[in-house]
Amino acid sequence: MDGPGGEAADARVPLVVVSHRGPVRFERGDDGRRRVQRSGGGLVTALLATLPALDPTRYDPVWLCAAATDEDRAVAAEHGPEAVTVEEVAECPVRMLAIDPDEHDRFYASFSNPMLWFIQHGLWGLATEPVIGRAEHDAYREGYVPVNRRVADAVHDECEQRGGASPIVMVHDYHFYLVPGLVRSVFPHARLHTFVHIPWPQADAWRVLPAEIRGALLHGLLGNDVVGFHTHRYARNFLLSCQELLDLPIDLGEMVVRIGDREVAATWSPLSVDVESLQAQAADTHVVDRRRELRDDRREHLVVRVDRSDPSKNIVRGFLAYDLLLEQHPELAGRVTFLALVPPSRQDVPQYARYLLDVRETVEAVNARHGGERWQPIDLRVEENLPLALAAYQEYDALMVNSVADGLNLVAKEGVALNERDGMLVLSENAGAYDELGAFSIGVNPFDIVQQADAIHEALTTDGERRHDLHVTARQMVEHNDPARWLQQQLDTLERHVGAGPPV
Amino acid sequence: MDGPGGEAADARVPLVVVSHRGPVRFERGDDGRRRVQRSGGGLVTALLATLPALDPTRYDPVWLCAAATDEDRAVAAEHGPEAVTVEEVAECPVRMLAIDPDEHDRFYASFSNPMLWFIQHGLWGLATEPVIGRAEHDAYREGYVPVNRRVADAVHDECEQRGGASPIVMVHDYHFYLVPGLVRSVFPHARLHTFVHIPWPQADAWRVLPAEIRGALLHGLLGNDVVGFHTHRYARNFLLSCQELLDLPIDLGEMVVRIGDREVAATWSPLSVDVESLQAQAADTHVVDRRRELRDDRREHLVVRVDRSDPSKNIVRGFLAYDLLLEQHPELAGRVTFLALVPPSRQDVPQYARYLLDVRETVEAVNARHGGERWQPIDLRVEENLPLALAAYQEYDALMVNSVADGLNLVAKEGVALNERDGMLVLSENAGAYDELGAFSIGVNPFDIVQQADAIHEALTTDGERRHDLHVTARQMVEHNDPARWLQQQLDTLERHVGAGPPV
Repeated sequence: MDGPGGEAADARVPLVVVSHRGPVRFERGDDGRRRVQRSGGGLVTALLATLPALDPTRYDPVWLCAAATDEDRAVAAEHGPEAVTVEEVAECPVRMLAIDPDEHDRFYASFSNPMLWFIQHGLWGLATEPVIGRAEHDAYREGYVPVNRRVADAVHDECEQRGGASPIVMVHDYHFYLVPGLVRSVFPHARLHTFVHIPWPQADAWRVLPAEIRGALLHGLLGNDVVGFHTHRYARNFLLSCQELLDLPIDLGEMVVRIGDREVAATWSPLSVDVESLQAQAADTHVVDRRRELRDDRREHLVVRVDRSDPSKNIVRGFLAYDLLLEQHPELAGRVTFLALVPPSRQDVPQYARYLLDVRETVEAVNARHGGERWQPIDLRVEENLPLALAAYQEYDALMVNSVADGLNLVAKEGVALNERDGMLVLSENAGAYDELGAFSIGVNPFDIVQQADAIHEALTTDGERRHDLHVTARQMVEHNDPARWLQQQLDTLERHVGAGPPV
Repeated sequence: MDGPGGEAADARVPLVVVSHRGPVRFERGDDGRRRVQRSGGGLVTALLATLPALDPTRYDPVWLCAAATDEDRAVAAEHGPEAVTVEEVAECPVRMLAIDPDEHDRFYASFSNPMLWFIQHGLWGLATEPVIGRAEHDAYREGYVPVNRRVADAVHDECEQRGGASPIVMVHDYHFYLVPGLVRSVFPHARLHTFVHIPWPQADAWRVLPAEIRGALLHGLLGNDVVGFHTHRYARNFLLSCQELLDLPIDLGEMVVRIGDREVAATWSPLSVDVESLQAQAADTHVVDRRRELRDDRREHLVVRVDRSDPSKNIVRGFLAYDLLLEQHPELAGRVTFLALVPPSRQDVPQYARYLLDVRETVEAVNARHGGERWQPIDLRVEENLPLALAAYQEYDALMVNSVADGLNLVAKEGVALNERDGMLVLSENAGAYDELGAFSIGVNPFDIVQQADAIHEALTTDGERRHDLHVTARQMVEHNDPARWLQQQLDTLERHVGAGPPV
């Protein structure tokens, strides 16, 4: 924002984006031919929508990610340190890192998930779990640490290849907390930024980890110039964590923590969804078909939820609240359906497998209690079905987002962006999206099923004018804060905090 | 501390002490005669040791508590608003409040335990529990609220009976968070103090409760002039909770929160044990017998733990650590015993019953894995056995206190006070006692069984001189900070914050 960077190619700033999941994945088909496809997920979708839109005269971007498939690893081996460009998909050079599968498993399946995910979402039942034994220590030392080192080396390599004394490095999410510290130690003038896409809990949640591990993670993040979060609450928690766990001085007015002679800023700006792209997807014929089916089959009221079967999503309590609603409002019998789209998630993790079982059992119990041959109160679909999800977004009267904890929750925004019935959003106070959308939704405490039952009732009975006003305002909010704006905001914040860097 | 209050009886300050459990309980024996006996527990023991020792020319004390037995209720009915004095036991007037058993059940068994206890010890596995349904709302509205009202009325009544414009009211623990606010509203010049004996967690832990309930609890406590805690960390968490949940201005330097035109101070001073009284109990012939048995049966090393079967005490992970110790140090086979005294606790609460089952199963597994006919590595005693506990305190080489969360943990202090073998304390970072005793013990992360295994090993192998130094210093710390000093400190703090009050 400090004026144009100039037209010459060598004035471009190297921009290394790091995320665990990359924008594309390669597969080898039955015909033996290599195929490439886009990955899913909110972060990837947002970056795919925004990175190619950055001013090409200012930035020289490359996207670093982990090779996810065997074919990814083959591609990585063929290209070595060179980035692949897959114009039709990514429109941005991509470098995939081949990581030893065992090491990756310790890094990903044993440490990042579930350890960091559970800590940051407050999901551990601390009386009995986790038990941090030798396997957990190894997952960190022989998994998280070496994978972070590998990524940091690749970042360093990309920065050197691309020249520029002050490259920008943007690291995404909880997989790579050590990377900024490692990059800083070999490249002190890099401008470093991490965006944490999941909640940052209060300091005591981190005390679950051995002191040397939690200290290393925080110090890794403190290699950044800026650490970004979806909400002010997370940014504040991060600073207070630095104070309480590392005894570092913080300033909650300026939102900075001081370490040595450096200052690290904690900022907040919620990610959003690309409304135009969503609308284009929703116009697809598969979606239109699903939508017609929903309309043909629908009862008077349609409640919808769309969530991976992750314990943080609070699917069971949502059904218990609906159960209570049907008990308290017998007049709703036969007049409402709760359509729950629940793609299965991480079924190799015992807690996740047990949770999906709980979800199924709860649905059976509620349907047995209130339903009959002619009406099933809950329609549970345990499957990945994007067309149906997009159709359901358009058709809901109430969208249930009652997460126990949620960095942001893009479902709330996708629903608001696409809904065409002035549907109401029932939104957890503990979802990051509550900061933006709370005023235009019915807020709920995720633990309180009485309040959630009342909220669904309110969502189904609020009068039309108010529904319309709330929906329109919420949609404007979502449209306004689009992903391109978000990415540019991160870059501007970084430049504001460390300057545009010396000319190359 | 502002000079003596004068000798005349009417210059005494009414001092109303409130705790859920009282100093005595009445029973009717098989012979039909009424019997009275002292209650147990750290708080009651400390108050029993200290209230009678207060300067009788300055304070006019009365102890308010809930009637716990049918015979207590009979005594309460006979005396009405008049206090009972049981010279030989309590040496202080006691007023027992008869509470309707159903109401008390909702107050105690449904709300205070487990809801508040679990929140404050961070024990909920939030993915699935608690589910706040109608029963939980009722437990608050039809249990906690009316019992708190009843107690506040009795406090008011006692203050009026005893005269004095500025009575002192000291409320203990999590059962009565609403009392100070209620008393303040009818008696604005009372000097009000609550001491919270369990941890005060960070603000987000309170978000489990519906906003109106958590708000009411905090506002109740803010009726106080001073809220006391065992540690600085809890006091700080309390102030930050007021800021984050109620948006009140706080000052973490002065450690106060401002509400309206009042300031409420958060202070910290850890409770301790009465060493002389403990030593007198340890001289009892039953203890001496148990001690002889322990010495006759002992192996080279004796590890001890003494804990109610409460999930917060982390008994299972302690055994898993011991299991790992035996695996890593086969040379210890047959040379060490882990004596675990575990009085059963709250077995009517499902989580507690399940936890005790886990404890038993873990012990069986560890004994089966490492033990044999001639040696059982763990000696688990699920029973209330004070003489054995006192004997074990004297005889341990290592005392295991690895709580997940613990307001203070008096076992650590009792052990240190009585041990006669230069035994080492293995102490959780999350126990309040860690602030005082951490420097003289082996600190452990309660979730990390690798570290705990190493800590037990260190405790058993540290050389004699260092053991002796640590033990002596720890004992001096415990002796120095005795309960009488603690109580006077609370009173002095209160007077410092609100003055000695106008002359009566």
